[in-house]
Amino acid sequence: MGISKGSAQWNGGLKDGQGVMKPAHAPEAPFSLGTRFEGKQGSNPEELIGAALSGCFSMALSLGLETAGLKPTSIKTSADVQLDKQGAGFAITTIALTTEAIVPGASDEQFQKIAEETKKGCPVSKALAGTNITLKALLAR
Amino acid sequence: MGISKGSAQWNGGLKDGQGVMKPAHAPEAPFSLGTRFEGKQGSNPEELIGAALSGCFSMALSLGLETAGLKPTSIKTSADVQLDKQGAGFAITTIALTTEAIVPGASDEQFQKIAEETKKGCPVSKALAGTNITLKALLAR
Repeated sequence: MGISKGSAQWNGGLKDGQGVMKPAHAPEAPFSLGTRFEGKQGSNPEELIGAALSGCFSMALSLGLETAGLKPTSIKTSADVQLDKQGAGFAITTIALTTEAIVPGASDEQFQKIAEETKKGCPVSKALAGTNITLKALLAR
Repeated sequence: MGISKGSAQWNGGLKDGQGVMKPAHAPEAPFSLGTRFEGKQGSNPEELIGAALSGCFSMALSLGLETAGLKPTSIKTSADVQLDKQGAGFAITTIALTTEAIVPGASDEQFQKIAEETKKGCPVSKALAGTNITLKALLAR
């Protein structure tokens, strides 16, 4: 199947340098030590991971719901990606997903089951096996 | 440490629907079944994963080189993210990283060693434990 491309460039050292991340078909996202580790306004790899997982989960949830005979009107998902010190380096220890969906006719039990299966089965979830992904699924009324 | 945020919204079913991915501090990236699975021009979760890994790797490589007393001028990294059918679903089976760096005074042996360690140790690499990451590292002269 398909290959998707993303790239980045970093110029200079860690502290005095700066970088740009570029998904092939989305605008570039500049980043630096400050925007990644010091809370400065700006992008970083973790927020791209959060957006990618949210996107993959939302799309897969639409499939899961349709397979169960349900048609979602909208699915909104957000990801809080936590980066922590671990040993000599850093690690993404948890990604907390929250999804809120409008699904006419769905019971909460059905929805929770499908959402949980989606979390386990979507390609980006599976690739992110080295971190803990939690899910809070809300059925909007 | 810090939490980074990414989100997405999907409207409608899988085939007739469409979505938008949004890293908190980068522009939104629209996507659809077509841009993810049918080669249509546009973004998808995999290219955000590729950009995030390229960014994380490049920044971590600058740190690894500096720790060895070397100062990179520039590091360019790209990621080819392969999505394949696997069982009833899909999986990201391989991410092929290629990095090309200008590092005054570095020997190729030093550079290869540091690049390989960076691939193993950068936070996004570690989180992506569910896929196979390959690395081709080139020292530009």
